[in-house]
Amino acid sequence: MEFLVRMESLWPADGDAARLNEHLEHDSARVSELAESGVVSRLWRIPGNRANWGLWSASDASELHAALSSLQLFPYLEIEVVTLGTYPLDPGLKTR
Amino acid sequence: MEFLVRMESLWPADGDAARLNEHLEHDSARVSELAESGVVSRLWRIPGNRANWGLWSASDASELHAALSSLQLFPYLEIEVVTLGTYPLDPGLKTR
Amino acid sequence: MEFLVRMESLWPADGDAARLNEHLEHDSARVSELAESGVVSRLWRIPGNRANWGLWSASDASELHAALSSLQLFPYLEIEVVTLGTYPLDPGLKTR
Amino acid sequence: MEFLVRMESLWPADGDAARLNEHLEHDSARVSELAESGVVSRLWRIPGNRANWGLWSASDASELHAALSSLQLFPYLEIEVVTLGTYPLDPGLKTR
Amino acid sequence: MEFLVRMESLWPADGDAARLNEHLEHDSARVSELAESGVVSRLWRIPGNRANWGLWSASDASELHAALSSLQLFPYLEIEVVTLGTYPLDPGLKTR
Amino acid sequence: MEFLVRMESLWPADGDAARLNEHLEHDSARVSELAESGVVSRLWRIPGNRANWGLWSASDASELHAALSSLQLFPYLEIEVVTLGTYPLDPGLKTR
Amino acid sequence: MEFLVRMESLWPADGDAARLNEHLEHDSARVSELAESGVVSRLWRIPGNRANWGLWSASDASELHAALSSLQLFPYLEIEVVTLGTYPLDPGLKTR
Amino acid sequence: MEFLVRMESLWPADGDAARLNEHLEHDSARVSELAESGVVSRLWRIPGNRANWGLWSASDASELHAALSSLQLFPYLEIEVVTLGTYPLDPGLKTR
Amino acid sequence: MEFLVRMESLWPADGDAARLNEHLEHDSARVSELAESGVVSRLWRIPGNRANWGLWSASDASELHAALSSLQLFPYLEIEVVTLGTYPLDPGLKTR
Amino acid sequence: MEFLVRMESLWPADGDAARLNEHLEHDSARVSELAESGVVSRLWRIPGNRANWGLWSASDASELHAALSSLQLFPYLEIEVVTLGTYPLDPGLKTR
Repeated sequence: MEFLVRMESLWPADGDAARLNEHLEHDSARVSELAESGVVSRLWRIPGNRANWGLWSASDASELHAALSSLQLFPYLEIEVVTLGTYPLDPGLKTR
Repeated sequence: MEFLVRMESLWPADGDAARLNEHLEHDSARVSELAESGVVSRLWRIPGNRANWGLWSASDASELHAALSSLQLFPYLEIEVVTLGTYPLDPGLKTR
Repeated sequence: MEFLVRMESLWPADGDAARLNEHLEHDSARVSELAESGVVSRLWRIPGNRANWGLWSASDASELHAALSSLQLFPYLEIEVVTLGTYPLDPGLKTR
Repeated sequence: MEFLVRMESLWPADGDAARLNEHLEHDSARVSELAESGVVSRLWRIPGNRANWGLWSASDASELHAALSSLQLFPYLEIEVVTLGTYPLDPGLKTR
Repeated sequence: MEFLVRMESLWPADGDAARLNEHLEHDSARVSELAESGVVSRLWRIPGNRANWGLWSASDASELHAALSSLQLFPYLEIEVVTLGTYPLDPGLKTR
Repeated sequence: MEFLVRMESLWPADGDAARLNEHLEHDSARVSELAESGVVSRLWRIPGNRANWGLWSASDASELHAALSSLQLFPYLEIEVVTLGTYPLDPGLKTR
Repeated sequence: MEFLVRMESLWPADGDAARLNEHLEHDSARVSELAESGVVSRLWRIPGNRANWGLWSASDASELHAALSSLQLFPYLEIEVVTLGTYPLDPGLKTR
Repeated sequence: MEFLVRMESLWPADGDAARLNEHLEHDSARVSELAESGVVSRLWRIPGNRANWGLWSASDASELHAALSSLQLFPYLEIEVVTLGTYPLDPGLKTR
Repeated sequence: MEFLVRMESLWPADGDAARLNEHLEHDSARVSELAESGVVSRLWRIPGNRANWGLWSASDASELHAALSSLQLFPYLEIEVVTLGTYPLDPGLKTR
Repeated sequence: MEFLVRMESLWPADGDAARLNEHLEHDSARVSELAESGVVSRLWRIPGNRANWGLWSASDASELHAALSSLQLFPYLEIEVVTLGTYPLDPGLKTR
């Protein structure tokens, strides 16, 4: 299954910069792993916001939650999940 | 530029089925063309709704509008456009 | 996967009563089938509304959409889908 | 009566982890008791959120409130209650 | 149990006045019966709107729905139900 | 005039318990006085929330504000006021 | 008591112009009467909308409703009422 | 004064095309006049919608309303007006 | 031009009372000045809230902003401005 | 491409004034640079708010984000971006 996921960072503007960097390094590496294993396939910047939209894949909602909550910044993220089904006209169906 | 586009059909439930089919046939062919030319790369069903989310590409908002309004059902569609920027961690950047 | 599904009937208050009854009979039988096959396990009335909440099961969002759109009243239903994951403390896990 | 209950934890991301664990242990045991006595029958994860949907039973809204407020984390929970009535087609009616 | 119920009439401004009057007469008598049997205890005008708030009593949500849907205008009403519990400081507790 | 009033406590979950208790004792006594003088006639629990709905009476909005702001917790309350008019079918009109 | 009242006309854009004019003439005269008797003291255009904000006075919400519903266009109006209290610093208090 | 104005056409998708064209021709000419006289200085497409944002100038809200309501499609437009003040850093201040 | 302005105080409930009083004294005097010069003509209490609605006059939005931001509490106020135009039926037009 | 951008400062009312001034000086100079290079062409005050609307130009959403996030106050800004397309009737098209 595929999911569109919007995540916005609520890390306080005056928060500890060193700790934030540690989290970002960890999560950057974690996203790479998730990309390797096909869980995260796309990530886009939402202009003007500390936020992104992403295209995630998981066998079900529990597996998606496990992936999302493996990020160190997870407690600071406001996350919206859009569950997707297959659409007959999807150009992506041919190439998969 | 890439855009996430949500479109929902407001075609009346009691509308003329024959006319709707004509529109759907036209738009199905049009989407294929837009996929060929790289404008539409993904389309997903929103479960329980007469609606889809799609990943569209265009050089700017005007070109995106031209593509969307080339659908015959355009006057019956409620469309939401999410403008996307490039995200450094995007796994899709490597393969493009 | 399980889903909480809210559906509200938008059938016009002055609509054709005979046709509505046909649809209701069909959909009542269809819901029984879906219950038999384990797709619909619970349905609750939302008091004061022509609406219900239900607990639905499907292998993914596409299968859920197929079940929902097999109702004859589907074009007249406003449907909201809440995707659910497994919760460690769920008392229902023991008995399944 | 049955109720759908959505609860979201507002425990601060930087809160005292030891105290949170104490609360979670207490509430985990309390939920087991409530499940034993038939008050909580189902709990589901809301993916990407520190939140769950649950199916609760109580003789009325006061008894439901008593159950909810017996959780130690209650002051940190944002709770939404959906009151449910009996629906004639509910597959669950047969087996109860 | 008690419920606060908001109902707003969506009867079309250009609707058939004679039929509306028939419905209003029926529902006026029905409300009197519901008041007699203790189901409706208070009704208030919402100024500037074709709407009222009311205080309703029923053994549960199903009985409340039965009372509400016994009104002939029910298909034309937009209804919001607020489920109430007992509050220790309620001055009404003494006199009941 | 009558008013439906919803009040929700925003007292912080980690706030000073002793001070909260002082405020609650004061306000409990104050509500009794307001009930004696006919200003507060009903109060109901909103299940799952630190909130109540109440039925208040006052000669006008200024008098209502004076009553509400006489509570010690007033600065911590989020208050919504619904202004009510007389409804011809109100069963309460007969007994007053 | 004073009230801020927002009213927006929902008269259909393709409605019968002659009938609308009759209603407007009636309501224009009615507003003059209400102004004479001190019920309507100010009316302002909301730019770009078929709507106005007004400052109304009435002894209570029932009297306000009677005034509002005396307009022939009342069934076509969407009305929002803001109940006002006396403010100590109000410059208008001196001149009244 | 300057105003940002969003207007969306609610002309029905199945409306009379000839009449719509007449209105569009009239309004296109009218917008040119308003541009000549400095009332409309910019207009932008909102992609995927039958809507535009514009930058309008008028001496006050009444004059703005007069300009907006001089469009033949005005009764079919949903209009939102954002009132603007002067901002010290505005690059446009130098060139005016 | 006239404006309806809603302002709500976000001064923290536990804030420094002495400092708040200083601000209130300053702003009370400032409002008197603004009333003298015709900028503030009416102020009303919003019952149950630390908020008011007011009727303000200014030559344009910039002058209105200057008046609003001259209050010492301005940084703690959440302000909503409704821009008003002249309405032909306004009873206030005769007396001005 | 052009964008309408609304930015609102969330800098705390009790924040460090000296630090805020440093940020404002930096950002004022930065806005001048962005105006020089044609990225920011207009900025307007939103009356009563610590906020502005602006007209920004960038080759795409990524470049817009780079410009916005080059402000020192960026972490304290709540930003809304409206993506714009070309409108045939735009008076600005002639002069560009």
